[in-house]
Amino acid sequence: MNDIGLIGLAVMGQNLALNIVRNGYSVSVYNRTAEKTKKFIEERVKGEKITPYYDVQNFVKSLSRPRKIILMVKAGNPVDEIIQELLPYLQEGDLLIDAGNSHYNDTDRRLEKLSHKGILYLGMGVSGGEYGALHGPSIMPGGSLKAYQMVEEMLLKISAKTEDGPCCSYIGDGSAGHFVKMVHNGIEYAIMQSIAEIYDIMRKILGMKSNEIGLIFHQWNEGKLSSFLVEITYKIMQHIDEQTQKPLVELILDKAEQKGTGKWTAQAAFDLGIPTPSLNLAVVARALSHFKKEREILSNLFGEKNRIAGDRSLISDLEKSLELSMFSSFSQGLWLIHEASIAHNYKINLLEILRIWKGGCIIRAKMLDFIKDILKENPQNINLLFSEKAMNFIKDKIKSVIRVTELSRRSGIPTFLLNSTLDYIFSLTESHLPANLIQAQRDFFGAHTFERTDEEGIFHVEWQPLE
Amino acid sequence: MNDIGLIGLAVMGQNLALNIVRNGYSVSVYNRTAEKTKKFIEERVKGEKITPYYDVQNFVKSLSRPRKIILMVKAGNPVDEIIQELLPYLQEGDLLIDAGNSHYNDTDRRLEKLSHKGILYLGMGVSGGEYGALHGPSIMPGGSLKAYQMVEEMLLKISAKTEDGPCCSYIGDGSAGHFVKMVHNGIEYAIMQSIAEIYDIMRKILGMKSNEIGLIFHQWNEGKLSSFLVEITYKIMQHIDEQTQKPLVELILDKAEQKGTGKWTAQAAFDLGIPTPSLNLAVVARALSHFKKEREILSNLFGEKNRIAGDRSLISDLEKSLELSMFSSFSQGLWLIHEASIAHNYKINLLEILRIWKGGCIIRAKMLDFIKDILKENPQNINLLFSEKAMNFIKDKIKSVIRVTELSRRSGIPTFLLNSTLDYIFSLTESHLPANLIQAQRDFFGAHTFERTDEEGIFHVEWQPLE
Repeated sequence: MNDIGLIGLAVMGQNLALNIVRNGYSVSVYNRTAEKTKKFIEERVKGEKITPYYDVQNFVKSLSRPRKIILMVKAGNPVDEIIQELLPYLQEGDLLIDAGNSHYNDTDRRLEKLSHKGILYLGMGVSGGEYGALHGPSIMPGGSLKAYQMVEEMLLKISAKTEDGPCCSYIGDGSAGHFVKMVHNGIEYAIMQSIAEIYDIMRKILGMKSNEIGLIFHQWNEGKLSSFLVEITYKIMQHIDEQTQKPLVELILDKAEQKGTGKWTAQAAFDLGIPTPSLNLAVVARALSHFKKEREILSNLFGEKNRIAGDRSLISDLEKSLELSMFSSFSQGLWLIHEASIAHNYKINLLEILRIWKGGCIIRAKMLDFIKDILKENPQNINLLFSEKAMNFIKDKIKSVIRVTELSRRSGIPTFLLNSTLDYIFSLTESHLPANLIQAQRDFFGAHTFERTDEEGIFHVEWQPLE
Repeated sequence: MNDIGLIGLAVMGQNLALNIVRNGYSVSVYNRTAEKTKKFIEERVKGEKITPYYDVQNFVKSLSRPRKIILMVKAGNPVDEIIQELLPYLQEGDLLIDAGNSHYNDTDRRLEKLSHKGILYLGMGVSGGEYGALHGPSIMPGGSLKAYQMVEEMLLKISAKTEDGPCCSYIGDGSAGHFVKMVHNGIEYAIMQSIAEIYDIMRKILGMKSNEIGLIFHQWNEGKLSSFLVEITYKIMQHIDEQTQKPLVELILDKAEQKGTGKWTAQAAFDLGIPTPSLNLAVVARALSHFKKEREILSNLFGEKNRIAGDRSLISDLEKSLELSMFSSFSQGLWLIHEASIAHNYKINLLEILRIWKGGCIIRAKMLDFIKDILKENPQNINLLFSEKAMNFIKDKIKSVIRVTELSRRSGIPTFLLNSTLDYIFSLTESHLPANLIQAQRDFFGAHTFERTDEEGIFHVEWQPLE
C-alpha cells in the first residue's frame, strides 16, 4: 500500500511526485494517457518508491486508508471528470486534494458536493513553477482543518523553507487556498508587467542592450528589489540564442499569453468592490499585446514616435518606480484577500500568507519582510498604507515615478502599471474625489439619489430640465 | 382587452407606461405591492387607457392574444420570480419583454427556458433615464426577429427620434440587446469619470468655482463635445441648494454608487480578451471613491499636496482631453460589442447601434456622427482607429492630454481615465510591446513556451538555472 496517490503527470505533477517520494513517502501515480505515465517512469524514476497505475480502480486500491489523492490536472472540466471517475472507488474519510489552479467557485462547489458523500477535499494552491514543485513550492491549502491535518506533515516536508519556517500554512475554510493562490497570481501578473514596462523604457528611452539591462536587474536583485522575478529577468537578459547568437529575449514574439488566474483576480475584485487597478491593467496589457498584427498596422498609420532620449540618471528613478509599483501591487492584492476573507468567511491570517510567500513561490521578494513589519505594527492596516513607515516609503518614490512616466508619455510608450500605481495612491490620499459630480449626474438622469456632506440622509432633487 | 401589459411601477415603469399609452395603445399595469399601483393611477393617470390590476391572473387575462408583457422590475431574482408567477397563465405564442438591466447570461438562460414552453422572449435595453422613458428612450431589443416584429411598431413609436429615424433597432439574436445596453452603460461610466476628472482639475488646479465650471461645460456643449452628459454637467454646476444657497454639487458626498452594468462590462471584456482599460478604470475609480473614511485618514497621513497652479490656457487642453477620452471610450465599447457579436453569434450591425445611440440615451453625443463616418468608410474598422481621419483626430489631442495629466500628476490628482486613454492609444500604435519579456518569464518558471519573431513554431528553452 502506498501513502499518497497523484493524478496528472504533466511536468508539475511529475515534479511534485518526485518531491513527495524524496521526502520519505511512497506514491502511486496515474495519468489519463498511459503513454505519459510510462515515459515518466522510464525517464525520471530511478528506484524511487513510485508505482505507476493504468486504471483508476487499481490506482485507488493501491493506497492505504484513509486515501490521500492529489489531483494535478488542468483546471475546469478535467477536474470534475476525474472526480467522477474516482468516486465509485472512494470511501468515507478519503481525501482529495486539488493542487491545480481551479477557480474558487468551482472549489466551493466540489467541496459541497463531496461533503455529502463523506469525502474530504482540499483546494490547494501550489506556486513555484516546475522548479518549485520539485525542490519546494509555496503551498496554500484550504478546506476543513481536519482534512488539512491528514496531510500537514507531508506538506510541511515538501514545501520550501525560509528562516521563518516551511512555506505552507493552513489558509482557511472552503476555497480559501485557491482564492489566495489566485490573488498570488494576480500580483504576479502586475509585477511582471511593471518589470516589462521598466525594460521597455530602458531599451526605448535609454537605448540599452539586453545584456546591459540584465546587469541592472542583477544589481537591483542585490538590493531592496531582490526577488525571484527580478532575478529571472537578469537571467533572461543574459540568455543568448544558439542559432542566431543574439539575446533570445529580443527574438521572442511580444504576445503575452494567460491562463485565467489574473483575469479571475480582476473579476473577483470587481465583485468585492476592492480597487485593484494594477492587477486589472496587467491583464489588459496582456490582452493588448495579443493584437500584434493590428498594432503593426496602427503603428504605421500613426507614424514614428519621437522618443525622448533619457540619461542614465533615470536608472535610479526606474528602480524606485519598480519598488513602488511592486509595493502597490502587494497592497491591492492583500486588501482583496482581506475583503474576500470577510465576504467568504475564510478566516485568513494575512501575516501567515506573507510568511509562506517568502519562499518557493513566484512572487517571493525581500520586500515581503518590509510589508510584514508594516502589518505587524497594525494588523488592521489591510492595504498597508495606514502607516508612517509605508507613507515615507511611498513619498520617497513618487517623484521618480512621475519623472519616468512623463518621459515615457512624451515618447509614446504605454505604462499602464506605473500610471495605475500613482493613481491608486493619489486616490487613496485624496479626501475629496470628484465622485460628487458622478452622484449628481446619476441623480439627474436616474433619480438614483445622493448623500450630503453637511446632513445625514438620502436625497433627491428636481434638477433644472434640459433645454 | 388591452394591447400591452407592463409589470413594475417604479419611475421607469410608470413613465414607459405613459409613453406607450400616449402613442395610442391601451395598457394593463401590475405591481407586486398594490400601493404603488394605486398611487400611480391616482397621481399620474388622467383618463389615459391604463388599467390597474392587483393580481397576476386577471392582469394576464386582460390582454389581447398573443399577449405582450413588458417587465420593468429589478434585475436578478425578481425577474425570475415574476416569470414563474406569470407562467401558469401564459399560452404558446405570448411574448415577455425584459426591459430592465438584466445580465446577458440571465437573459440567455431565460430565453432558453421559455422557448421550451413556446413563450417568446425579448431582452431589451432601454436607455434614457426617467426623462427618456417618458419622452422617448433609445431602445435595444434582442431575441428572435419574430418576437421583435410583434412589437416593432410600438417600439418605433415610443422611442426617441433623430434626423436618422427612431432610436430603436432590432439588435440581434439571444441576449444581444442586453449585452449592447450593458456596454452602453460601460461607456457611460467611462465618460462620466472623464468629466469628473476634468472637473476635479478645474477646481483643484485652476481654482474655478462651480458656476464658472458650468459655463465652460455649457460652451463645450455648443461644440464638438455636445452631448447629454456634458449638458447635464452644466445644469448640475448651476444648481443652487435652497437651504445653504451654495452650489449643490459641492455639498454632495463624493462616494459614487453603482448598480452593476459597468462592472459586468469590464468582466465581459476580460472574458472576451478585449482591452477596455477606460471602461474598467471607471468602475475602479467608483470603488475607490467608496472608501471615504479611509481616504480622509490617509490624506492626513500623506500630508498636504502641492497643487500646481495652472492658467486658463489649460481649458482648451481640457476640452481636447475630454474629446479624446470620449472617443477612446467609444472605441473600446464598440470593439467589445463587435467581439461579443462574433463570440455569441449576435449578428450585430455596429452602424445601427451608433444610429440608435444618437438620441434618447445617456451617451448620446454629437461625436457619434464623426464615429459613424469613420465606420462607414470601413466597416471592418471595429475599434475606429484604422482610419486616417481617426488618427488625425487623435494626434491633434495627444499633446493636450499629456499636458493635463502632467499637471494633475504633479499636483497629486488621480486621472485614471485620462491616463488609460493615452496608454490604450500608445499600446495600439506600438509595434513592439515588452510582452516578449513576459513570455520569456512564463517560459522560465512554468515552461509555458513562446513564439519567435524569426521562425514559425512553439518554443521552449532551458534557461540558466537560478543561483
